[in-house]
Amino acid sequence: MEAKLGEFDLIWRFFKAGSESMAQTQINRVLLGIGDDCALLQSDATQSLAVTSDMLVEGRHFFAGANAEWLGHKALAVNLSDLAAMGAKPVGFTLALALPNANADWLAQFSQGLFRLAQQWQCPLIGGDTTQGPLTICITALGHVPAGSAIKRSGAKTGDDIWVSGTLGDARLALGALRKEWSLNPSSLETVLPRMHEPEPRIALGMQLRGIANSALDVSDGLLGDLRHILKASQVNAEVLIDQLPASRTLAEQTQDLRRQCAANGGDDYELCFTAPASKRMEVESLSTALLPLTRIGSITSASNGAEPELILRDANGNPLTNADSMRLTQSFDHFKST
Amino acid sequence: MEAKLGEFDLIWRFFKAGSESMAQTQINRVLLGIGDDCALLQSDATQSLAVTSDMLVEGRHFFAGANAEWLGHKALAVNLSDLAAMGAKPVGFTLALALPNANADWLAQFSQGLFRLAQQWQCPLIGGDTTQGPLTICITALGHVPAGSAIKRSGAKTGDDIWVSGTLGDARLALGALRKEWSLNPSSLETVLPRMHEPEPRIALGMQLRGIANSALDVSDGLLGDLRHILKASQVNAEVLIDQLPASRTLAEQTQDLRRQCAANGGDDYELCFTAPASKRMEVESLSTALLPLTRIGSITSASNGAEPELILRDANGNPLTNADSMRLTQSFDHFKST
Repeated sequence: MEAKLGEFDLIWRFFKAGSESMAQTQINRVLLGIGDDCALLQSDATQSLAVTSDMLVEGRHFFAGANAEWLGHKALAVNLSDLAAMGAKPVGFTLALALPNANADWLAQFSQGLFRLAQQWQCPLIGGDTTQGPLTICITALGHVPAGSAIKRSGAKTGDDIWVSGTLGDARLALGALRKEWSLNPSSLETVLPRMHEPEPRIALGMQLRGIANSALDVSDGLLGDLRHILKASQVNAEVLIDQLPASRTLAEQTQDLRRQCAANGGDDYELCFTAPASKRMEVESLSTALLPLTRIGSITSASNGAEPELILRDANGNPLTNADSMRLTQSFDHFKST
Repeated sequence: MEAKLGEFDLIWRFFKAGSESMAQTQINRVLLGIGDDCALLQSDATQSLAVTSDMLVEGRHFFAGANAEWLGHKALAVNLSDLAAMGAKPVGFTLALALPNANADWLAQFSQGLFRLAQQWQCPLIGGDTTQGPLTICITALGHVPAGSAIKRSGAKTGDDIWVSGTLGDARLALGALRKEWSLNPSSLETVLPRMHEPEPRIALGMQLRGIANSALDVSDGLLGDLRHILKASQVNAEVLIDQLPASRTLAEQTQDLRRQCAANGGDDYELCFTAPASKRMEVESLSTALLPLTRIGSITSASNGAEPELILRDANGNPLTNADSMRLTQSFDHFKST
């Protein structure tokens, strides 16, 4: 449930105005509307319901003829990743599916990928719709989170550490190789392809971050662009150590430029980026040992006081990147982003 | 959230198997999975959450170049109609939208139709997704219903009256005229077109039917086909007085054959069909006076005891239709159905 960049960002702002006027009249039921990873509805006194929808379109979010098993996995994974970013536990999902035709082999593979992930997180398919049309997959996932415990984008505080889970950039590295933007040897490609095709939603981590993280989101459109959503929602400035971004061995072997671009702007990572007070550092490090590696990549430096948030990038020596380098990394997003 | 007929019905059954095995392990949270107008999730001790998703695809559910304001209305209306069929009160909805391009005029019209209906039922847009692609609209609507009060398809009892709200067949009459399947004079067409373009979800009726109706669904694919869903889910047989089906003045002026086909099989009516014990007849008639006309069209005659349910059609004199006539009405569905 990301606002997309470029012209589609404008579209979404269009709907946001209509939404907000009405949501305010229902303040007791709609706790959080458009603009975070999930919407939050009041479920009862002890629990909130997190809701997220994502639509995947052939030719835009995946290649025509894409492996149906991966597609079934990914369509659910991107939604579960939004639940994870709020600290929510999956409850169930609906599936709306437009298909050009009913191909039994395709359906068998698609549902295998879909249900394997659903089973892993005990998140049953509860309903939906099928129709004929250009291949389009729309999943709406529902999750529960204890009342008041959802992790929003708007909670980052000055002094917070900025953390990211797992490694970044492999999905983009794989996509670029498939698109022949750069070359990658076959064994390296094989290593990074699963990150593009079968992302793992960080559900367990998200649930553990309740009470630890002040803010979080899932990295779907590239770390720096997504981190800006936190900075805007929280009205804070930040510094990021660009060469601290966690990379797989395969990505680490690439040129500095490619490594930085993929890790900072890649898209399709589905890792969690979160901020937490420095006082929680030991708790985060325990999670890093218990669940999956978590890397401290920077900090929230100050309040932005209503101005456009500043995001300063520093190199391995702690020096700010040159304006030109920084601009390339923070503004080349549209050009460089994953489909 | 209808299972579609034909090959797409098969698809849905495919997913249903995977869904059911898992939903059973979560029986406390998923009260009702695939196969009704909405799924039901336990919200708290006093309330259930109804969830429904519908996807509309250009060229299949609406003509290319369709009026965007009508489309915005209809995309939400078909989902609210599913909530109505369960007796649920709308809480909010997500919108996932694929658009070939970002046309400001189109968006202004679309959101006007969408938000006018949303406002009418205090059902805010709470989130979603926009992307580029062939025009596709997927809405997931959420509603609340007091625990144990949701009206399911499976509750029809022997002796129940069968009722339908409003009038049937106008949307199909309009569609056929636009498709030149038959001719209709311009003023008649103008009268029935709004039933095709701007269906009114019967939310208020659905909520009032809690505690009165034993079963209900919304008539989206044609009355007789949809009524069969109730008969199957409830394992009962029924009789319907085919010439009792409520028709607008415009439809009543058509030939008997066209009138019967449109009213019995038309599709896109978005009226509620429900069953209620004969002892509740006065309560239903009060609703008919207070809200909108409700017509008694038949009755649930007996249990089907596991066999394929029987649906007997009778003419104005109470005589069963000839086999040929009956077959035409109950089996010509695929040929005759709305897109």
